Amino acid sequence: MMDPVSLPPLSRIAICGGTHGNEMSGVHLVRELQRQKMEKVGSAALTTVISNPCAIQVCRRYIDKDLNRCFTDAILSSPVTGDTPYEVRRAQELSALLGPKGSVQAMDLVCDLHNSTSNMGLSLITYFNQDPLILHICRHIQRKVTLAPVRLIQLDTPHSDAYSLDSIGKHSFSIEVGPQPHGVIRADIFNIMKEAVDQTLEWVRCFNSGSAFEGAEVDNVYIFVKSVEYPRDPETNHVTAVIHPQLQDRDFCLLRPGDPMFLTFSGDTVKYEGEEVLHPFFVNEGAYYEKNIAFHLGRRITLTIPSLQMKGH
Amino acid sequence: MMDPVSLPPLSRIAICGGTHGNEMSGVHLVRELQRQKMEKVGSAALTTVISNPCAIQVCRRYIDKDLNRCFTDAILSSPVTGDTPYEVRRAQELSALLGPKGSVQAMDLVCDLHNSTSNMGLSLITYFNQDPLILHICRHIQRKVTLAPVRLIQLDTPHSDAYSLDSIGKHSFSIEVGPQPHGVIRADIFNIMKEAVDQTLEWVRCFNSGSAFEGAEVDNVYIFVKSVEYPRDPETNHVTAVIHPQLQDRDFCLLRPGDPMFLTFSGDTVKYEGEEVLHPFFVNEGAYYEKNIAFHLGRRITLTIPSLQMKGH
Repeated sequence: MMDPVSLPPLSRIAICGGTHGNEMSGVHLVRELQRQKMEKVGSAALTTVISNPCAIQVCRRYIDKDLNRCFTDAILSSPVTGDTPYEVRRAQELSALLGPKGSVQAMDLVCDLHNSTSNMGLSLITYFNQDPLILHICRHIQRKVTLAPVRLIQLDTPHSDAYSLDSIGKHSFSIEVGPQPHGVIRADIFNIMKEAVDQTLEWVRCFNSGSAFEGAEVDNVYIFVKSVEYPRDPETNHVTAVIHPQLQDRDFCLLRPGDPMFLTFSGDTVKYEGEEVLHPFFVNEGAYYEKNIAFHLGRRITLTIPSLQMKGH
Repeated sequence: MMDPVSLPPLSRIAICGGTHGNEMSGVHLVRELQRQKMEKVGSAALTTVISNPCAIQVCRRYIDKDLNRCFTDAILSSPVTGDTPYEVRRAQELSALLGPKGSVQAMDLVCDLHNSTSNMGLSLITYFNQDPLILHICRHIQRKVTLAPVRLIQLDTPHSDAYSLDSIGKHSFSIEVGPQPHGVIRADIFNIMKEAVDQTLEWVRCFNSGSAFEGAEVDNVYIFVKSVEYPRDPETNHVTAVIHPQLQDRDFCLLRPGDPMFLTFSGDTVKYEGEEVLHPFFVNEGAYYEKNIAFHLGRRITLTIPSLQMKGH
């Protein structure tokens, strides 16, 4: 038995979309919340944010630099000059609006909305900080969302190096839904994201009104282990192979030593030669070609979470 | 019975990819042909072209202007100044290399490779000029390709206004394969395109070596009728609805009056109110948002094609 946890109510929460300007579900979902003028969630004040309006305007991931890699303490405290990339300036604006990151004034909860070209279903991404509040939100979403399988991905990064927008919040996570081509909005993917956001807001209402949440086990949790790179021609730097048809769309399935991983353009199969059976995810994510990442590998675990209630109840 | 047709051999042919810089199957297929140094197809000389290298470099459809709309007589003959868009200059270069368009020196056959985010399977796009040579290539591909359904789309445009790269050739068509996100390459989609190109080259070998092709009927032909636009908010110009889940991925199926067409972000269904039963295609193509095109509608016909043989045989 873990000790029960009590935490203060969530009085200010934020939902952000368009942190990547070509990930359309979040853009349209936030616009719809703004159109409905939804400013309260039970007792909590809701802030909705279109994170990267300039990138949305031109339907690109970013203008100068990936905004969702700009929220480290180092970048947020860097001096602004004439040469400062647009996204660094925007990250500092967003930290001022929703934070400052790491301060007592920061939003109690920040949830940032993303899409992937990979078959990610509904994935919730958090830093590996065992925050019982976020883990209870994840468990609630796993139990309530019906439109897609729900996984939790945990990144093992200290808070000062946490680079994503959501890390501004005292409690934080990202919602990643796919597959959806960048620059496109699909109704099925939009509806999955909407269900996840609706259930997040529903959980906040319950928590703030004093509901108790039992301790539990959370399954379908993946710890990031490593990334696998594309094979490239050393002379031209062009990729020489593509994700193998037997791996494509099989995010979160098992990858065993000897399983096909890539198919070269001349028709040869490249096999996975790792020693450990792991779970691939972000398989063939369009935005990761420039980072040379073909997919990530994770280890599946089960987490035990303590019971949780609002402080003072 | 139609009169038999005889045509000169195809002595110079071109395969082009990367006309849109983020449509990755064609880019990699042409690079692979270049790596293999494939310069002959039977008796025909093969030219392979990476059409828009600057757009490929930054993984965008185009730099200044859609290259595949730049091959009209008007644009190809426009004077070049310092302000001329990159793609207009590149179109004039490509017309000089593969044409000039409309001249006796033009390539005998130009085939241009494209991808779509829509569920297009393998679609062959031609101008509605009833060219028996192209129709025989289409029929051959329809009979030989096993990896995807094969349709033929015909655009009714006079040759001087034909705007696409392939229109430089004496005979010409485009190959469109999907669904594939822009900026991503999938093995399954690459393999469909490769099968289509292999069968095109195989047909050229047969034709040039004197094979006779019987007259026949070609089915699965779609004539472009009209485009359907996204509903937009007149104030913000944002789209207010997305392709309905019952229409998404159903390219070339029947759309009947009263069928769902769009789903608004607030959850309402917008129905098709046309009077004619038609076939949607390019449904939710990512590159068409900026053109405000949600999908095209076509009429399905069957074409009768004459027998064909090389002149002099």
